[in-house]
Amino acid sequence: MSILVVGSAALDTVETPFGSVEDALGGSAIYFSAAASYFAPVNLVAVVGDDFPREQIEFLKKKNVDFSGLEVANGKTFRWGGKYGFDLNERDTLFTHLNVFEKFEPKIPDSYKNSEYIFLANIGPDLQMDVLKQIQAPKLVALDTMNYWIGGNLPALRETLKRVDVLIINDSEVRQLANEANLVKASKIVQEMGPKTLIIKKGEHGALLITRNSFFWAPAYPLEIIYDPTGAGDTFAGGFMGYMARSDDISIDNLKRAVVFGSAMASFCVEKFSLERLKNLSDEEIRTRFKEFWQMTNFDPNV
Amino acid sequence: MSILVVGSAALDTVETPFGSVEDALGGSAIYFSAAASYFAPVNLVAVVGDDFPREQIEFLKKKNVDFSGLEVANGKTFRWGGKYGFDLNERDTLFTHLNVFEKFEPKIPDSYKNSEYIFLANIGPDLQMDVLKQIQAPKLVALDTMNYWIGGNLPALRETLKRVDVLIINDSEVRQLANEANLVKASKIVQEMGPKTLIIKKGEHGALLITRNSFFWAPAYPLEIIYDPTGAGDTFAGGFMGYMARSDDISIDNLKRAVVFGSAMASFCVEKFSLERLKNLSDEEIRTRFKEFWQMTNFDPNV
Repeated sequence: MSILVVGSAALDTVETPFGSVEDALGGSAIYFSAAASYFAPVNLVAVVGDDFPREQIEFLKKKNVDFSGLEVANGKTFRWGGKYGFDLNERDTLFTHLNVFEKFEPKIPDSYKNSEYIFLANIGPDLQMDVLKQIQAPKLVALDTMNYWIGGNLPALRETLKRVDVLIINDSEVRQLANEANLVKASKIVQEMGPKTLIIKKGEHGALLITRNSFFWAPAYPLEIIYDPTGAGDTFAGGFMGYMARSDDISIDNLKRAVVFGSAMASFCVEKFSLERLKNLSDEEIRTRFKEFWQMTNFDPNV
Repeated sequence: MSILVVGSAALDTVETPFGSVEDALGGSAIYFSAAASYFAPVNLVAVVGDDFPREQIEFLKKKNVDFSGLEVANGKTFRWGGKYGFDLNERDTLFTHLNVFEKFEPKIPDSYKNSEYIFLANIGPDLQMDVLKQIQAPKLVALDTMNYWIGGNLPALRETLKRVDVLIINDSEVRQLANEANLVKASKIVQEMGPKTLIIKKGEHGALLITRNSFFWAPAYPLEIIYDPTGAGDTFAGGFMGYMARSDDISIDNLKRAVVFGSAMASFCVEKFSLERLKNLSDEEIRTRFKEFWQMTNFDPNV
């Protein structure tokens, strides 16, 4: 099954205690595609400027990512700059130059319209809705959003959420969206808005999968050095949706495995700057890390 | 196998968004005993003043807790007052009246000296060492400490840690003790100090069991209302040590189960004020919750 992702392509300038990069490949749709393409073909929709270094996405073209939906607009590519301290859960945004991304209007190529697994990365909720209207018969729609849209365009977000199956957001965002501090209560409130499945990303504390009648916790992989957390959330989503599309099975047991694959891919992402670590993973490396997650949580309940 | 616990007995005044209690039964040794006594006999060493309402510990006497080591001193019982906001991970201490606890010198009754499972609750590291010197042949020594001792009496704590098997502390404390922000690196540094096994409590984010060559994550139980987090850490330790003593098996597989029993007991603790919820649990309730933890983390790794 093929996946459609709509999001950003960007050039990131990032500084962490372990080094820095300037104008490195980034953006939600790019990170997502890099992870998802290990599992299934990806149809990408994004916009870049005429300054975009296209040779940098060659590795993705070789890996089942279709760039028919990459619009090249007159102007400059979206640029973001950020700085992380030793507490990698917090970051300072140094600059955000939306450039051509400011006028982004996602157009879904005809060849993409029968995509069954849809990931709406963090863009305006009205644009996310426009995308859904262009899709014929999605099997699973997942959406990411952020505090900027929850605070700034809640009515549109609420409308879009009605058509979403899986909401993938972080813990502070689910609390903000529900206006409720307790995560269990907040999840129920958000489920009432539309998405029956929530995936709550908690950074170094792992991820939660919450359905109508089950809770599942996936840990974060214990790393001694996190070089660059940028893109970890979109990489998580890519691993999750990639495995869902490959297995084409939306049972709860499979959702759990998909969350663990998402966590595994995110753990690779942060081991190097930009997309460096996601370029040349082997299937064996991914499988091994997936099994390590099992070892970290498995116990024999027979006492 | 019997357990020895040395710690505090206190009267707590607690305010949370869900209510308040005044001079309610509390203290590390009391919470620990209440949880551990569901699994194995407990020998308690603590001090109270002559104002201590002894009828409040009758339920523990009926549950295998030996109070031969409870010293009744002239003066008032240790009192602590605290207030929690909606973010139950943070609390304000309103007052700390050490009273008779200030001059506490743990004396281990002869009948306790062959205890095999030892829990040194959060008291001064020099007192913790004094206790260890009075014990004949401990099989497993676990210790809790806090930022106050890490900052205030590190040399004594380092000496005591050399004789400890399992250190049970929270994530900020392990970072402070190791002077290292990364939890994986910090754990290795602390293991070099003595305890080969670390249990890192992360509140609503669960608990980590770290041995020389393994990582294990236990989740926190998802609760819609946390009435009172006071004592959750000592209750966790009680469930952990209780199960270890009952099974008398220090294999890694058993340590994992013990961490889950600790998490299960802590989840009961916070459901009511003071020790109310820990008074009348059934074995069936404990077993059921233990299995729920398994369900929350278990997945089939065969893809």
